[in-house]
Amino acid sequence: MSSSLLEDFSLKYKKLVEAEAVSLVEQLTAPDVLKEAMIYSLNAGGKRIRPLLIFTVLHAFGLDPKVGLKPAAAIEMIHTYSLIHDDLPSMDNDDLRRGKPTNHKVYGEAAAILAGDALLTFAFEVLTQLKIEEASAEIKLSLIRELAVSAGAEGMVGGQTADIEAEGKVLDLKELEYIHKNKTGKLLTCSVMMAALLADSDSYTQGLLRDFSYHIGLAFQIQDDILDIEGMQEKIGKPVGSDIDNQKNTYPALLTLDGAKGKLHEHIQLAKQSLEKTNLDIEMLLQLTDLIAKRDH
Amino acid sequence: MSSSLLEDFSLKYKKLVEAEAVSLVEQLTAPDVLKEAMIYSLNAGGKRIRPLLIFTVLHAFGLDPKVGLKPAAAIEMIHTYSLIHDDLPSMDNDDLRRGKPTNHKVYGEAAAILAGDALLTFAFEVLTQLKIEEASAEIKLSLIRELAVSAGAEGMVGGQTADIEAEGKVLDLKELEYIHKNKTGKLLTCSVMMAALLADSDSYTQGLLRDFSYHIGLAFQIQDDILDIEGMQEKIGKPVGSDIDNQKNTYPALLTLDGAKGKLHEHIQLAKQSLEKTNLDIEMLLQLTDLIAKRDH
Repeated sequence: MSSSLLEDFSLKYKKLVEAEAVSLVEQLTAPDVLKEAMIYSLNAGGKRIRPLLIFTVLHAFGLDPKVGLKPAAAIEMIHTYSLIHDDLPSMDNDDLRRGKPTNHKVYGEAAAILAGDALLTFAFEVLTQLKIEEASAEIKLSLIRELAVSAGAEGMVGGQTADIEAEGKVLDLKELEYIHKNKTGKLLTCSVMMAALLADSDSYTQGLLRDFSYHIGLAFQIQDDILDIEGMQEKIGKPVGSDIDNQKNTYPALLTLDGAKGKLHEHIQLAKQSLEKTNLDIEMLLQLTDLIAKRDH
Repeated sequence: MSSSLLEDFSLKYKKLVEAEAVSLVEQLTAPDVLKEAMIYSLNAGGKRIRPLLIFTVLHAFGLDPKVGLKPAAAIEMIHTYSLIHDDLPSMDNDDLRRGKPTNHKVYGEAAAILAGDALLTFAFEVLTQLKIEEASAEIKLSLIRELAVSAGAEGMVGGQTADIEAEGKVLDLKELEYIHKNKTGKLLTCSVMMAALLADSDSYTQGLLRDFSYHIGLAFQIQDDILDIEGMQEKIGKPVGSDIDNQKNTYPALLTLDGAKGKLHEHIQLAKQSLEKTNLDIEMLLQLTDLIAKRDH
């Protein structure tokens, strides 16, 4: 399979899930300003890596990726709400995201908090809307449970809390991995597992896919940290000193830049090894794994 | 049934649901500060009217009210998260709730937002935890759907958004009822309906219970507005002029104090009439309805 096939696949399903998420919100009977604020952030772009994981894993099972449209819309709503709340003045205080004003800069803090709350709540409703030919009641419940555990105190919200707690402290590798495993990793794992649940797969395959998602989650974060450093080096025209690095809890700061690159390579290899132990059609998933390691933004 | 039997019933199940909610959060594997912030607000007291509605309706169906413990804990988590977010500086900016410092005054704004997000998310997980002998997969899904619709953009969050939008505007009765029906009414309806769903009741009975909950929801809010006025009159020692009333969108401001009392009586009567059309054991529900109309705080 050529790389452009993954590209075509990505482009097609990215468009579909974006349209699905917005259409679901448009159908709500709710104050216009609330729907506008929800849609504004859903439309703010992004790689849609979580939906893409759902679609690609469904493809690997030989299923129609469209079965994953509503779960993909739901997980993108969760991701979007987390960005809206993270950007708030009392959190990261960001005015811009992907070059556009953040939600609270456009709609005000109160509306931004409520738009986040509404997206979070709606994600669970959307999962109940799957048709019975797409998922049995038991499978829908397991999707809801997976999403709630991954997004909540034992997952993303827990990781975000630990990240805030870590400000100004120097972390060891274990503490840093706790943050990333939860703050970003759990939703990536959730995407992979939602597809595995929709495929009604056996627990051996689910275990391998969980391992796969764990490794790409950490790889994703390490590559983020590497891009930050290399982007900064490009900007200031010289290597960034370790005194600056140590201010932030990043993989390069803990392991050196080369060490981080080694760790990235290691996780990518372990992710691929997990995939290879399954009996799925993994070619496109392998390409997606390489994409995560090689992305430049 | 004597009024003290309702009191004993209330006291017993209030304690049970408070212990259940806290115990569920304590079992989470999550940062201590997050769990503390969640539990702080769960423990902040209150009438627990939503859980009590679940237990009383289950009793009316002749079921063991304990079947409603997890749904009651879930709805109290949703109510608690909404109070945490409503109290934030960018929303109502309240420093105190029931005489205790609000969540963000103790834990900071970021932690308060995250504690709210975690409680909201956890409520859905708790509903998936019901045992199969308590609820079938289909019933669990209908509980999750009812909670998501009631708490989200089409319910509580929509009502809260409309309430913020209404600041400084004079509303008519229809607009005022939209706010209350959604901001407080939908979660009360959700409590009643969750019990009706757990009882696997017919759609005729469910329709009557939905009407019942609609009327007690509005009665609850009208009584709130009346208490505000009469409390203020007591404080300043003379009747409050309509010029002051008109600053706020309240039932007494729109209908006069006597008009509001008439409306309250009307909703209480309609609520009772709906109950009387069912074939349930409604005695304790009638007492609870009177309690809502006569409460003094």
